[in-house]
Amino acid sequence: MPVVDRPDDRPQRVVVFGAGAVGCYFGAKLAEAGTPVTLIGRAAHMDAVRRDGLLFDSGGVQRRIRLDTDTGAESVRKAHWVLFCVKTRDTEAAARQIAPLLRPDAVVVSLQNGVDNVERLRASGIDALGAVVYVAAAMAGPGHLRHSGRGDLVVGEYGGARGEVAMAGAAQPSARTLAVARLFEGAGVPCRVEADVRAALWDKLVANCAFNAISALTRSRYGPMIDDADVRRLMRETIDECVRVAHADGVALAGTDAQYDAAMRLGEAMREASSSMEQDLSSGRRTEIDSLNGYVCRRGEALGIATPANRTLTTLVRLLERSVTGG
Amino acid sequence: MPVVDRPDDRPQRVVVFGAGAVGCYFGAKLAEAGTPVTLIGRAAHMDAVRRDGLLFDSGGVQRRIRLDTDTGAESVRKAHWVLFCVKTRDTEAAARQIAPLLRPDAVVVSLQNGVDNVERLRASGIDALGAVVYVAAAMAGPGHLRHSGRGDLVVGEYGGARGEVAMAGAAQPSARTLAVARLFEGAGVPCRVEADVRAALWDKLVANCAFNAISALTRSRYGPMIDDADVRRLMRETIDECVRVAHADGVALAGTDAQYDAAMRLGEAMREASSSMEQDLSSGRRTEIDSLNGYVCRRGEALGIATPANRTLTTLVRLLERSVTGG
Repeated sequence: MPVVDRPDDRPQRVVVFGAGAVGCYFGAKLAEAGTPVTLIGRAAHMDAVRRDGLLFDSGGVQRRIRLDTDTGAESVRKAHWVLFCVKTRDTEAAARQIAPLLRPDAVVVSLQNGVDNVERLRASGIDALGAVVYVAAAMAGPGHLRHSGRGDLVVGEYGGARGEVAMAGAAQPSARTLAVARLFEGAGVPCRVEADVRAALWDKLVANCAFNAISALTRSRYGPMIDDADVRRLMRETIDECVRVAHADGVALAGTDAQYDAAMRLGEAMREASSSMEQDLSSGRRTEIDSLNGYVCRRGEALGIATPANRTLTTLVRLLERSVTGG
Repeated sequence: MPVVDRPDDRPQRVVVFGAGAVGCYFGAKLAEAGTPVTLIGRAAHMDAVRRDGLLFDSGGVQRRIRLDTDTGAESVRKAHWVLFCVKTRDTEAAARQIAPLLRPDAVVVSLQNGVDNVERLRASGIDALGAVVYVAAAMAGPGHLRHSGRGDLVVGEYGGARGEVAMAGAAQPSARTLAVARLFEGAGVPCRVEADVRAALWDKLVANCAFNAISALTRSRYGPMIDDADVRRLMRETIDECVRVAHADGVALAGTDAQYDAAMRLGEAMREASSSMEQDLSSGRRTEIDSLNGYVCRRGEALGIATPANRTLTTLVRLLERSVTGG
């Protein structure tokens, strides 16, 4: 077992692997609190950060934050903590890249969309923690992070205590879960801990499945979506399929009514938002559909649960993705 | 009964009501064959046609065709034949406008998308013939018609002999059906006759339901659609729902396999085409979704047939329509 709680030690280095908007946000918060942080990301962003610092743009206030940078994986060797922030379709390739470089006591935390990244990391030999990320942030230009809302986490073991499935209510968060929460809370990042992070990952997946694809296909903000009875019906069908798949998969997720009500509250609170998937497609980029509605379809098929609404949305988003990326 | 077959008479005037691309195409073909034709349409197009003639642009060859024009409904008073070509959402309003102006012996032919225009015209006091239109044409500018494929019709009474439902195989095309076919065939327009035009209208509706909404939502041409197994599955579900609704509605439509095979052949023959709905949305215009997939949903609901695929497509197209029209 790695020793993760050693307050008397020198500061532990955090390496952000795949430093897009999410990775830059949390890396910057930790760096501002005194943690040594290395960002590993694309040259265009890293060059700008090395030269001028990260331009952290939040609520109309801009500041520059100094961070170490790298464009290759070598810096992973120094990491006590790895914030794993790559796009979900790159999880395996990135895991193969960093696995041979990790210190024996390094802890990897997946800060990604979707619910299966920890399993995919395990299959690649990395026993990661899972985190649910709530932050509205985007890269507005090279080295320029624009933050527009929230910035909090839920963290925990995937499936409860490592190597065994947690009993409901019985399990406690693992020591490394508590340690990562202290790291973030110490930097002013609210970080809820869970013994088993799966239900929290699914909560976010359900909301993403209900909003992202519809917003992307119709270039619509959340307000007009939840104002339309037919769209609400489609969102509810999508949510209901997700809940059935999660339950069949043994995840203690709240039911369809609760998830639907939460989605309506989210839409009301974010009437002017459109989904990250909509932004990806508007910019001609690929989406994470295979980790969102597409994942629900695959798990549903494996578990014998019909998912017609999620399947139609997945099919349409993939086709639109090919149209806008020319591939 | 109007006397419609009088070869010894002076040429009968054709009035095109709602002269967009479809109306201009068939009006021009009739005018070139010597039939007096009046186009009634928007001022921008009519002004150009009055000044310079219709610019008829087909297969790389351009010619100018003289036609009478009007921007109000008054010219309908002169019509022996009215080609009724308005957008389906304007059917009732246009019918109210022309009904008081029609000669007692005038015959109205609906050249519109969807399957319920004749019923809607009847409810407005106009006993029209139905026609299925196969033509690829668009207005490329004021008074400028661009024709890119086909140009043929299927015409017949809606529901068979007027006032009664035709017995399968027993009914003959009505006299006015034969007369309108002679008018078009005499102008070189292939015109198939049917005793009951409903199945032919549904054939086209099924193809429209399978292609138009998916093409519009994904900005996709037909080739990439039929190359994708998931899209083919969605198209087949959409077609199957249409066929079930048509059968429940008493329409002798060919089954799902035949309709699906026809759709695949159409997609193969038109790999580079995108749907008129896609073009409408790309240009910020409203679509005819309520007469296509939306109609199938409404009839399905009335007849107790589930139409989840058509419903999802309808919901998404309506929301996208609001995004692009700002309404």
